[in-house]
Amino acid sequence: MPTNPLILKRQRIARTRLFQVEQLDLRFSNGVERTYERLASSGYGAVAVVPVTAQGEVILVQEYSAGINAYQWGLPKGSIDPGEGNLEAGNRELKEEAGVGARELRFLKSIHLTPSYMERSIDVLVAWDLYEESLPGDEPEPLATMHWPLDNLAELVARADVSDGISITALYMARDYLQSSPIQ
Amino acid sequence: MPTNPLILKRQRIARTRLFQVEQLDLRFSNGVERTYERLASSGYGAVAVVPVTAQGEVILVQEYSAGINAYQWGLPKGSIDPGEGNLEAGNRELKEEAGVGARELRFLKSIHLTPSYMERSIDVLVAWDLYEESLPGDEPEPLATMHWPLDNLAELVARADVSDGISITALYMARDYLQSSPIQ
Repeated sequence: MPTNPLILKRQRIARTRLFQVEQLDLRFSNGVERTYERLASSGYGAVAVVPVTAQGEVILVQEYSAGINAYQWGLPKGSIDPGEGNLEAGNRELKEEAGVGARELRFLKSIHLTPSYMERSIDVLVAWDLYEESLPGDEPEPLATMHWPLDNLAELVARADVSDGISITALYMARDYLQSSPIQ
Repeated sequence: MPTNPLILKRQRIARTRLFQVEQLDLRFSNGVERTYERLASSGYGAVAVVPVTAQGEVILVQEYSAGINAYQWGLPKGSIDPGEGNLEAGNRELKEEAGVGARELRFLKSIHLTPSYMERSIDVLVAWDLYEESLPGDEPEPLATMHWPLDNLAELVARADVSDGISITALYMARDYLQSSPIQ
């Protein structure tokens, strides 16, 4: 593993309710100096959950995506609340967004959205042994849901209204996990 | 498809060299009003390339990730220059970061990093029929490379120094694409 660059200076250069931008003055191990910007993280992390039914279908939710001003299909996901574990947060998000709880939840991996300039990470969970249960969430409107066969990701990923990199990553990871460790 | 919320007001609330934060006052179709923040995009988009050798191995590069202050293995990727097509940008990034060019490049999909609050998208490309060619890039240091069998993604994705969601998504997409449309 290479030696990390030396951080010569680090300063916050912008802050809004959701985003904190930091500027880093770096000296790489070969002596080259560069100034980088990154989005610093706050909060307690986030989860994305792949809820799999007894029929091998994943439950997707349709949510307004402010980044691209369009509705998109993706996984139930959200921030971890203070004091909450990641599995607990995942089960809560399932109930709030998809109207189901899970008796089994497993952590697969923590991935970074784009580590080159964002600190944020999201824990990918797979959930099964589902039951109906709803909790009120903080969404501005109820979310539509749809069931999709996990063994037909190609057709899902080809859709224009499925473009969320985190959801797509998590779906592939869950499919591969379940193929090598079947639920039954 | 649901009706998009009405954008009542849109204003830039922070701007740095790399990031522009916008605040959106929205009215959803059910009348609920909310204020969202999002990172607006500038530039001409970006590409992530999965370069596959004749041996069925992907070439990965090891790059410093300022977002998490750590070196990570991932795909060659970068911004599209003005006037450049996405395949052209992909081939240039390959030469700059991995020391290879590709006689075949195919566009798979444009994915959003996290559309709920970021406008940015990245075009996922798969490349094969590779040949040795280097171009000087804008990296502060030469990048180490490694070859990894595309049919063993599970072991790669399990590594702590592989966490970039975009790279992981692109690897799965390329693997599935090549399984259904073999190169030979």
